[in-house]
Formats: sequence, C-alpha cells, structure tokens
Amino acid sequence: MTDQLDAKVNDLSLKSEADPAAVEDDDQIVNPWEVVSKSEKGVDYDKLIKRFGSTRIDQALLDRFEKVTGHKPHHMLRRGIFFSQRDVHFILNCYETKKPFFLYTGRGPSSDAMHLGHLIPFLFTKWLQEVFDVPLVIQMTDDEKFLWKDLKVEEALRLTYENAKDIIALGFDVDKTFIFSDMEYIGSCPAFYRNMLKVQKCVTFNQVKGIFGFGDSDCIGKISFPAIQAAPSFSNSFPGIFGEKDTGKIPCLIPCAIDQDPYFRMTRDVAPRLGYPKPALIHSTFFPALQGAQSKMSASDPTSSIFLTDTQKQIKTKINKYAFSGGGTSVEEHREKGGNCEVDVSYQYLTFFLEDDEKLEQIRQDYSSGKLLTGEIKKELVTILQQLVAKHQERRKDVTLEVVKSYMTPRPLNEKKDK
Amino acid sequence: MTDQLDAKVNDLSLKSEADPAAVEDDDQIVNPWEVVSKSEKGVDYDKLIKRFGSTRIDQALLDRFEKVTGHKPHHMLRRGIFFSQRDVHFILNCYETKKPFFLYTGRGPSSDAMHLGHLIPFLFTKWLQEVFDVPLVIQMTDDEKFLWKDLKVEEALRLTYENAKDIIALGFDVDKTFIFSDMEYIGSCPAFYRNMLKVQKCVTFNQVKGIFGFGDSDCIGKISFPAIQAAPSFSNSFPGIFGEKDTGKIPCLIPCAIDQDPYFRMTRDVAPRLGYPKPALIHSTFFPALQGAQSKMSASDPTSSIFLTDTQKQIKTKINKYAFSGGGTSVEEHREKGGNCEVDVSYQYLTFFLEDDEKLEQIRQDYSSGKLLTGEIKKELVTILQQLVAKHQERRKDVTLEVVKSYMTPRPLNEKKDK
Repeated sequence: MTDQLDAKVNDLSLKSEADPAAVEDDDQIVNPWEVVSKSEKGVDYDKLIKRFGSTRIDQALLDRFEKVTGHKPHHMLRRGIFFSQRDVHFILNCYETKKPFFLYTGRGPSSDAMHLGHLIPFLFTKWLQEVFDVPLVIQMTDDEKFLWKDLKVEEALRLTYENAKDIIALGFDVDKTFIFSDMEYIGSCPAFYRNMLKVQKCVTFNQVKGIFGFGDSDCIGKISFPAIQAAPSFSNSFPGIFGEKDTGKIPCLIPCAIDQDPYFRMTRDVAPRLGYPKPALIHSTFFPALQGAQSKMSASDPTSSIFLTDTQKQIKTKINKYAFSGGGTSVEEHREKGGNCEVDVSYQYLTFFLEDDEKLEQIRQDYSSGKLLTGEIKKELVTILQQLVAKHQERRKDVTLEVVKSYMTPRPLNEKKDK
Repeated sequence: MTDQLDAKVNDLSLKSEADPAAVEDDDQIVNPWEVVSKSEKGVDYDKLIKRFGSTRIDQALLDRFEKVTGHKPHHMLRRGIFFSQRDVHFILNCYETKKPFFLYTGRGPSSDAMHLGHLIPFLFTKWLQEVFDVPLVIQMTDDEKFLWKDLKVEEALRLTYENAKDIIALGFDVDKTFIFSDMEYIGSCPAFYRNMLKVQKCVTFNQVKGIFGFGDSDCIGKISFPAIQAAPSFSNSFPGIFGEKDTGKIPCLIPCAIDQDPYFRMTRDVAPRLGYPKPALIHSTFFPALQGAQSKMSASDPTSSIFLTDTQKQIKTKINKYAFSGGGTSVEEHREKGGNCEVDVSYQYLTFFLEDDEKLEQIRQDYSSGKLLTGEIKKELVTILQQLVAKHQERRKDVTLEVVKSYMTPRPLNEKKDK
C-alpha cells in the first residue's frame, strides 16, 4: 500500500509545475478529486492550512461563536473536525448585527449510495442552519459528475434526485433550504448563468491550471467548471430566493471538506472584482476510510466505508472486518500497551458520531490504557452507526419525489423567525 | 498599410504552433476574430477552402439547387459570394424527400449599429428560409461579446435587443423564426445547457488551442465558448420549437461568413459522437471595407463601412470619399486604360446589392473599358444603398419591443406550408 501511494505521489509530483496547489508537499495530495497521504495518521492539516492560506479555528473563535449565538459549539467544532476557516468572524458580525447572510454547501452526485463521509458537511450545515436560522442553498453538481465520470446526462440527473433524498432525510428545514441540480437550475435561471460568465471572464486557463492542475488534454467543460461551483457564493445567483432586486451583496458562509477549498480560493479572488463579498468558509477534515486515515473513502469501493444503504448486519460485519485497529496484536499485548486512538478508525469514527463528550473521553482513556479491547470499541461504534443508519433509512422512506420537488423549487426562503 | 499588415501577420505567425488553423498561410489570417490579407484583392478563398477542407460551390450544385427547389439561385450564390459549402447536397436530399431540417445563423452583438457586411448572411438566410420554408434559429452571442469585449452583461444584452430589431426589419417570417440571446436562453432551457455540456465533454483545450488559437492566458469563458456556438446546431437544443420528444436528429444548415467555419468544423467533429447529424454549411466571402478588400470592416471605425444608421448624406459622402477606386488616376487615364473591377470597392458592393445581372454586367463592361467613370459608378452605388438603408430605417421604426419579444419567445415554428 505504501509503495502504491509512493508511486502515486511521485507520479503526481511530475506535474507539480502545472499544479502547485494540488501537489506541493512531498507526502500528501489534496485537491477536489484526490486526497492521498503517506502518513498513517492521515493528512497533515497544519501543512494544509499553511499551503491553502486559511486560518485554524482557535478557542477564541469558539468562545465568540458561543457568546454571539448562545449555542455551545457543535461537537465537530469542539473536536477540531471543522478545524479551518476564512472570515467566520465576519459572518458572526453579520449575525450579531442582524444583517442577512446565507449558507451554501453542495454535493457531486456520482453514486446512488452516499456514505458516512458524505454526511459530515451536511450534518454540520444543518446544525449551522438551526443556530443561525438563515437560508441554505445546496448545489448538486451533476454537470461536474457528467464531465468527470463515465456518466450520461440522464444518469447524473437521476443521481441528483437520489442523493437529494438522503440529504433531505437529514432533516433540513424545507422553509429555509433550496436544493438545486446544476443541469436543471442553470437552464432555468439567467441570473445564475450571468454570474457563471462573470467568473469565467475573470479567470484564465493559467489560473485553473495552477489551482486545480488542469492540463491541455482536459476537456473544456472541466476547465470552465470552477465558475459553476463559484456562482452560488453570490446571492444574486438566486433571484427566486433573495428577490430580483438583490445585487449579490448578501454574504455567504460555506461549510465543506477542505478539499473543496481551491474552488473558493478562486471565488474569493474573483469576488471583489465583481463587486461581491468574498464567501466565508469553514473547513472539515476528511472522514477516514475504514482501512485507515491515509485516504478519503471511495463510493466505488463498498468495503471502504459504511453506506447509508447498508443493512444492520453489513454495518457490523464491515466494522468488525475492515475498521483499522489501533489496538495490540493480541489481547495480552493490548492490555499491556494499550490502543492507539490516533490511528484507530473506530475511535476516529466515534469522534464524528458520539456526541457525548464525557463518554468519548472515557472510551479514549480506557482504550489507550488497554482496559477497553478492540472488539469492545468496535461494538460501541456498531451500535451507534446501526442506530444512525436505521433512523436515516426510516426517514428516507418518507422522502417522496413530491417532497424532493418542494426543496428543489426556487422560492423565497423564510427570513429569520424572530423578525 | 502593407507594413502594418506585414507586422501583424508576422506577429501572429509567432503563435502559429498553437494556432495552425488561424495562421497557416503567410499572407492571410482568417479566424472568427480576425480577417487580414496582404493582397489588395483580399483573402485568397481557394487557399481557405483547401485549408478548411470545405468544398467550392460549383455549377452542378447550383443546377441541382434550382432543379430541386424550383428557384433560380440567389444572386449571391450565382456570383460566388456564397462560394463554399459542406453537405449542402444532403440538405437538398432532405428537401427533396420532404424530411424536416432547419436553418441556423447568428450574430455577435458588439455594437448598436450594424453595417452592410453584417447584413449579408441574414439577407441570404432570409432568402433560404423563403425557398425552403423551414424554421430558422438566430443565436445572439451576447455572452461571447461579454467575454471578448470590454462590455458589461447588461450592455451586451441591450445590444442583442438593438441588433435583433435590425435583423427583424429585414423581414424574417415571425412564424418560422426564433431569435435568442444566449444570456437569456441558456438560463431558460436546460436542454440547451445539456448540449453545451455534451460538447464541452468532447472537446479538449488542445483542440480549441489548435482550432481557435486560444492560449493559456485566455479566460476560461473564452475557452469553453465554442460549445455554446455549437449547441444550436442540434435540434434538441430547442424543445420549445421542435418538441420535447425530439432527440436532436433534425439536420441543420448554417449560412455564415467563412470566418465562422472553425466553430462548425469543431461541431461536425463532435456531432457523430453525440449521435447527432453534422450541421451542413454554406459560407460567404467577406464584405470588403470601403478602403479595400484587405480586411473585414470594423464596427468601431465609422469610415470603414456604411451603417444601417447612416443618413442619406453620410452614405453619399462615405462612398465618394472612402470607397477605394479601381479607376484611373485621371479622367484621361481612366478613359484610356479603364477601371479595375477586381479591386474597385464600388463595383464589389454592387455585386452584393445590385440584383439585376444584366445591368451589373453592363456596368462591369463600361467601367472596365473606361466608358463609365469612377464618379458615375459611385453614383450608381450611392443610389442603391440610399434606397436600401432608407427602406431599412423605415421598417426598423415599426419593430417595437413587443415585436422583438414575439420573435424571441420559444414556441413551435410553423412547419412547411404545403404540408
């Protein structure tokens, strides 16, 4: 495995001149299409923050967040899963002074089954929406998936609808959430297309080559796509939501995994030239594959993660069989030396899904000391994930096409309830 | 002037590796953004046909055209102004067997005032529409002009509407003509956007570099634009016209100046891979500038052509003052040696606008022999152009915004009247 990663990193290093952002470090690759790390601890996020030029979320920001919103920061914030940001203070200023802003996140619908990793930005965004009580737009980049994958237009669009059901099942407030398919919405909103054009006019091939590593043999659709992911950052891309008179000045906060940052670095670069505010960002780490933290999960490898379509039995089997263990090789060794939470995938998953801080800390101590065995920590995780997935599947059943359409119809989204 | 052209050709030759189609010959440049020739006779069209790989329109095609349609070929066909084609025989087959097809042409709205050269493809297309009795779509590439020029989105859109008035004033049948602004239509027709995407997926940066001469410092909007000019070649880009069930199999004939051919070479290359028929083409030569045939006219240089907004007096003054003369330097010399119709701009203009073959031939003979003086041939032309422009201005007055909107509303276009 290490050899393969070495080869991959080396291979990609060859095009580092064309792709400085994607391959700067020798030991990790992070871009919207690939996340590879040589370290068993996974990606070095400090390096990433330095390279991308974002800011680590510190205790002062968490304290201010709590003070301004009156909400204890989400466990994914407290635990550093959302770890990096740009201009979140500015968004808190807006909240504090009751100025409008909105949330924007998205998904590239490339497969029927979404996995646990896909949930992270959505679970967090849903919480942000509840805390801030602001409109949320969710972009389904089916055009991107059509361009990048061996997918037909119709299939990409079908996946948008399937994935939208999973997203809706997480419980987004229909009165404050607009989900849109690029393939449908671009063709139904001239204002969106005009913002695409404005971004496309400001960004050269040289720039997307540098930011995304595109090459001369890439199709022109890929080359101009970044403008499409940029456009929803500007509120006047949604006249149906913010009104025909909106001039694009309503600020936006984008929760996303940090591999999406290149799109928004580009967007932030362009925004002032277009007279729009720069979107603020809040970045998450990557959800580790069952096999370990060296890579993101792959929707095409069913053993690499837990899918929202998995049965209770599959969840149990996968965790027991594939979840990389940081425990000792034998019970004796484990009791003696303890487990390593830093690389133990079951423990890592618990940091994402076990909300109870005290219980998590107890598990950490017990596993580290050897008191808790690998089988036992896996059992904890299996129980939590079985509940989560069962509950999800239950709710998803109620998401009919009609419900999906209600989320996907452009319409004014409710303003803050206290207004 | 020759020095300047030399410098320009040499300068552009430097990027010939990136742009083989645009700069192959040493003595002329022809691409959608630039037409430059070192010869005073203008562009060498034989060379162009060879380079572009199109077919010269020969007598056999004209004979067949007349036989199949029952119409004498238009004077611009008879006189070789429309001189080159691709697959026109195929379109005649369709007409003969009563299979549906449609016409597609367009305009990049970069200025308020259209000049005589802009009229050529439209006048000819109008005639084709009358002969064939088929639907016509006219694309206004305001997005292209926004990307290429120092224009705001709103201004490009305004120019679309101004230019549409001029086009409509030529007398297109509202029951068979759909005019659309890219900036409006792309945002109101998902099917169009999907065809854009399909083309964008098939064409690489290398290809557009070769075909159009784009470079690394061009903006990503320019790089992906060719897909937008390709999309109207496919009938299912217009479900409002050809029906929701249309699968894009209705063939298309594109009348245009030959500088637009690169777009459609690309389109023809891509079409079979998408399961669509290749668009057929019929190409015109360039309408010469008043100063001579070495370049196309420029909308930004008011002395380079007659504009549709010119007064009767302006027309007379411009022709008398600027129209390059192929006559002798003195009356005596002219009477003795005669005039040169090949370079005389007034005579060239008459070939475009004087429909009477016999009268034109008489003028040619008299001017060549020296019997007709430069002032006299200019007077003939002034009279014709004054009438044409006055009539146009009169008709344009009646083109209200309401009329424009009737052309620009997607709707089923009437089938052949004899069906």
